Amino acid sequence: MANIRDIAKMAGVSVTTVSRVLNNHPYVSAEKVSAVIEAMKKYNYHRNINAVHLSKGKTFLVGVVVPFSNHPYFGLLLEGIATAALENNYKLVLIQTNYEEDKELEALKMLEDKQIDALIICSRICEWNLIEGCSANGPIVLCEDARDKRVSSTFIDHYKSFTMALNFLYKKGHTKIGYTIGRQSGTNSKQRDAAYKDFLKRHTFSYEPGYIFSGCFNFEDGDQVVEKLLQMKNRPTALLVTSDQVAAGIVTRCREQGILVPENLAIMSFDNQPISKVMHITTLEIPLVEVGKKLFGQAMKGEHVSHEEIPVRFIERQTV
Amino acid sequence: MANIRDIAKMAGVSVTTVSRVLNNHPYVSAEKVSAVIEAMKKYNYHRNINAVHLSKGKTFLVGVVVPFSNHPYFGLLLEGIATAALENNYKLVLIQTNYEEDKELEALKMLEDKQIDALIICSRICEWNLIEGCSANGPIVLCEDARDKRVSSTFIDHYKSFTMALNFLYKKGHTKIGYTIGRQSGTNSKQRDAAYKDFLKRHTFSYEPGYIFSGCFNFEDGDQVVEKLLQMKNRPTALLVTSDQVAAGIVTRCREQGILVPENLAIMSFDNQPISKVMHITTLEIPLVEVGKKLFGQAMKGEHVSHEEIPVRFIERQTV
Repeated sequence: MANIRDIAKMAGVSVTTVSRVLNNHPYVSAEKVSAVIEAMKKYNYHRNINAVHLSKGKTFLVGVVVPFSNHPYFGLLLEGIATAALENNYKLVLIQTNYEEDKELEALKMLEDKQIDALIICSRICEWNLIEGCSANGPIVLCEDARDKRVSSTFIDHYKSFTMALNFLYKKGHTKIGYTIGRQSGTNSKQRDAAYKDFLKRHTFSYEPGYIFSGCFNFEDGDQVVEKLLQMKNRPTALLVTSDQVAAGIVTRCREQGILVPENLAIMSFDNQPISKVMHITTLEIPLVEVGKKLFGQAMKGEHVSHEEIPVRFIERQTV
Repeated sequence: MANIRDIAKMAGVSVTTVSRVLNNHPYVSAEKVSAVIEAMKKYNYHRNINAVHLSKGKTFLVGVVVPFSNHPYFGLLLEGIATAALENNYKLVLIQTNYEEDKELEALKMLEDKQIDALIICSRICEWNLIEGCSANGPIVLCEDARDKRVSSTFIDHYKSFTMALNFLYKKGHTKIGYTIGRQSGTNSKQRDAAYKDFLKRHTFSYEPGYIFSGCFNFEDGDQVVEKLLQMKNRPTALLVTSDQVAAGIVTRCREQGILVPENLAIMSFDNQPISKVMHITTLEIPLVEVGKKLFGQAMKGEHVSHEEIPVRFIERQTV
């Protein structure tokens, strides 16, 4: 395919002029525009989809921002989004951010540049004002409670579900409860922390900073949780674990260390991924594939902003 | 964004003419071309990336074909591809096929239409002649042995690794060995089947069609394998399982049914995903993230076709 220099040469104009034509700059003469187009015709031997998109104003691409491609939580969301995309003849542009803000900004830029028709952000790092500022460029959909924002959302009420889990552990006799979390800064994490602090306040339990384990995403992260527990004098008797992967890691490590689950440590997990079934882990099911499908549906709704809360389901197994 | 009708109306030409201009059709007058461009300028308030791509001949997008987004095998490949894409400032267009040929053809069409710069096919359904026929449109990279083809590939020698696993089971005293597989029609599956049949021939063991369990992709599929085993009079004493997920499902179901692993049934798995560690499953490690990175690297090499074999690693645990 020809580049901008080839076209400039062929059209007998400067590269700047070609750029101006392509960027719809107002100060280019009709002759030059015509010459550039002629040159592009010569070089572009067949139908170029980018030209077609230029005319239709649609790319049939939806951007999906995920921090990691491989984590089962995002894998399940992605499966739901991809299934809905398939049914609607859309393709997905996957933007893996590793929680780097730059990458999320690039995704927002793609929407502004009409490279995608809509953007689904599965886990956000940018500030709200940045995201809302881009909402005029096309549909943006988030997987967190955004009921007070100018973008659509499908979400779990993490305050409610965390409270539900804490109350369940309390009824089972636990008063020293800790929790594990991925990032502490995300909206979902903040909701969970608020539920945790409100629970402590309600029961006048004291807040133990050591009971909160952050940076827990994967199976392997369960190891460090158990290592820290082993070094504690006043250990929690129960943990809320915000990912089945981490819960599976904790249960495995506990077995190796002779910590009985649930007798010495109760584990209440989230997601209900297949691994929780294998390990007989008590968990709160979050129907991630369904959430993914709903996120895509909202991305298709254009400027119509909507919000949908997805209920969680309690699945009792053997770790509490 | 304006559509083709708006542009036609504004330019005072027919929709066909606009389409011709955008598709670089030869028989359009310079005046009409100019009018169309002027109309596009009026409607297109700012820089349109599709126009920029049209000039640069590059989209900074690489297409990735996967049958499923959620399966851990493809999740790990995708993680490797996405990590390499991130480092190279590329984004990925995810094309989930569910093994429908139409969807794979659409992905090949995207390459032809210059909507992506290269295409990585993680698991193929189209015939080779179709794929090779598209290789002139841009780099195509496959995750299977394609040493005799005009496309690049990063692959595992599945004949060799299956033979290695079979020999290991034979040395452990097993003579009645079966295997589970996803699709029977894929290249990797055919290589595995050839290794299996050659192994039987070498030892003059008879071929038992009931010892081959197809359609095994996920954890849940382990259930039906054990159900079938329970109904067999002459059961295999060992199974090669081509996915850790399926192996984990089989081991779990065996426990529930009182089938001792490895005493009553030895399990030799593939991949070395975290779940195989939890379940202490003996497995052949396939470094999928590394494979993914290499696939992306080959996609960046343009017309240079290369082939790379990735060695597997034997990980002995407790199921053989």
